[in-house]
Amino acid sequence: MKLAKVVGTVVSTRKEESVEGLKFLILQQVDLEGKDTNGFVVAADVVGAGISEMVLFATGSSARQTVRTDKRPCDAVVMAIVDNWEVNGELKYKKGVHD
Amino acid sequence: MKLAKVVGTVVSTRKEESVEGLKFLILQQVDLEGKDTNGFVVAADVVGAGISEMVLFATGSSARQTVRTDKRPCDAVVMAIVDNWEVNGELKYKKGVHD
Amino acid sequence: MKLAKVVGTVVSTRKEESVEGLKFLILQQVDLEGKDTNGFVVAADVVGAGISEMVLFATGSSARQTVRTDKRPCDAVVMAIVDNWEVNGELKYKKGVHD
Amino acid sequence: MKLAKVVGTVVSTRKEESVEGLKFLILQQVDLEGKDTNGFVVAADVVGAGISEMVLFATGSSARQTVRTDKRPCDAVVMAIVDNWEVNGELKYKKGVHD
Amino acid sequence: MKLAKVVGTVVSTRKEESVEGLKFLILQQVDLEGKDTNGFVVAADVVGAGISEMVLFATGSSARQTVRTDKRPCDAVVMAIVDNWEVNGELKYKKGVHD
Repeated sequence: MKLAKVVGTVVSTRKEESVEGLKFLILQQVDLEGKDTNGFVVAADVVGAGISEMVLFATGSSARQTVRTDKRPCDAVVMAIVDNWEVNGELKYKKGVHD
Repeated sequence: MKLAKVVGTVVSTRKEESVEGLKFLILQQVDLEGKDTNGFVVAADVVGAGISEMVLFATGSSARQTVRTDKRPCDAVVMAIVDNWEVNGELKYKKGVHD
Repeated sequence: MKLAKVVGTVVSTRKEESVEGLKFLILQQVDLEGKDTNGFVVAADVVGAGISEMVLFATGSSARQTVRTDKRPCDAVVMAIVDNWEVNGELKYKKGVHD
Repeated sequence: MKLAKVVGTVVSTRKEESVEGLKFLILQQVDLEGKDTNGFVVAADVVGAGISEMVLFATGSSARQTVRTDKRPCDAVVMAIVDNWEVNGELKYKKGVHD
Repeated sequence: MKLAKVVGTVVSTRKEESVEGLKFLILQQVDLEGKDTNGFVVAADVVGAGISEMVLFATGSSARQTVRTDKRPCDAVVMAIVDNWEVNGELKYKKGVHD
């Protein structure tokens, strides 16, 4: 999984019918300090993540291991909203504090 | 998924028979501003995307989760045509306006 | 899928028995102008591609979706020989002309 | 697989229910000398790895080939704690010595 | 698949039990001239490859398509020992000559 911040949404009317109803979030990948990096990805949301929340996302076939993404042409999914993370004993991000 | 612009097509006569009838599009990846990046990929089209449209594409085994790509040696598929996207509350792309 | 030029072959006597009989081609990836890039990959051939031909290859589990690669430890396959491609209405490669 | 050092943990309350109970470790990838590189990943732990231990992790669908990660949206797993490795006959890392 | 040279081994006592008995090799990726590049990977060996041999390895789910890696959390496998390869008609590597 990777750490990322939810920064936006993508809207699509004409799409493969099996992805109908999926919400597509734009995720900006972050480094271990919580700073934006250049990488971004569009992922389906199955946990109700909102703009500016830090999340974990999974890619590849693992992105289809949820009820809402199963058997769909979806290669990235937000599967957790992050409360906090620490590196070498130091708190690097805490929801509500570092947002 | 990734954001990309449809910029071209690839024609092939001699190919694995199971991909017969699939349309192969050349996708130029774009950044969050909608600007071209260096990355490109060739993807099967299952939504009727046309040249210069912004799309979402999925890769890997997820690219085979459609009726037309199922069980085929195809690792990228256009699964949505993008109407618009926004980042941090700002509209970055709107079909018909930013094309 | 990616665009590449067939530039060579790899010979192996001692190998996993299930890949016995597969032909391994060296593929040099090309950009949209048909120019060599730094990337290369070794792929199984299922379409009879020859040296200097432009091809499409698929990677990952999609590379196993052919009769000859099914259930084999093979992660890249040449699944189409390219006749031509065009970008933004301009012919960038045509077999027999740009070779 | 890749070599990495366990450097931290990620805590999440709201998550896909199937990953409930999985421990998420932050892994800093290392080079063959055991030095940190820029790459990091968040992986599920199934071997009881602790902070500062060197580990091997697997990604993609292979990350789901354990009892605790099976059928879950998890794309990276720590599947071995490293005792030592050597390169060209030279011991590059030995647990308890190079930590 | 990718070309690489076997340069080392990784030893692990505490690991996911299904990978018990697998030998983990350190592979240094090489370019088409057979020169070392920066990339390396740890792969399971199913062909009896030895230090300094040139090999082909497969990654992802394809790495599990062998009897010894099937259903295991293993994402890279050495599936062939290379005798030789040539590029544009020129022999670039021949076992016993370029080692």
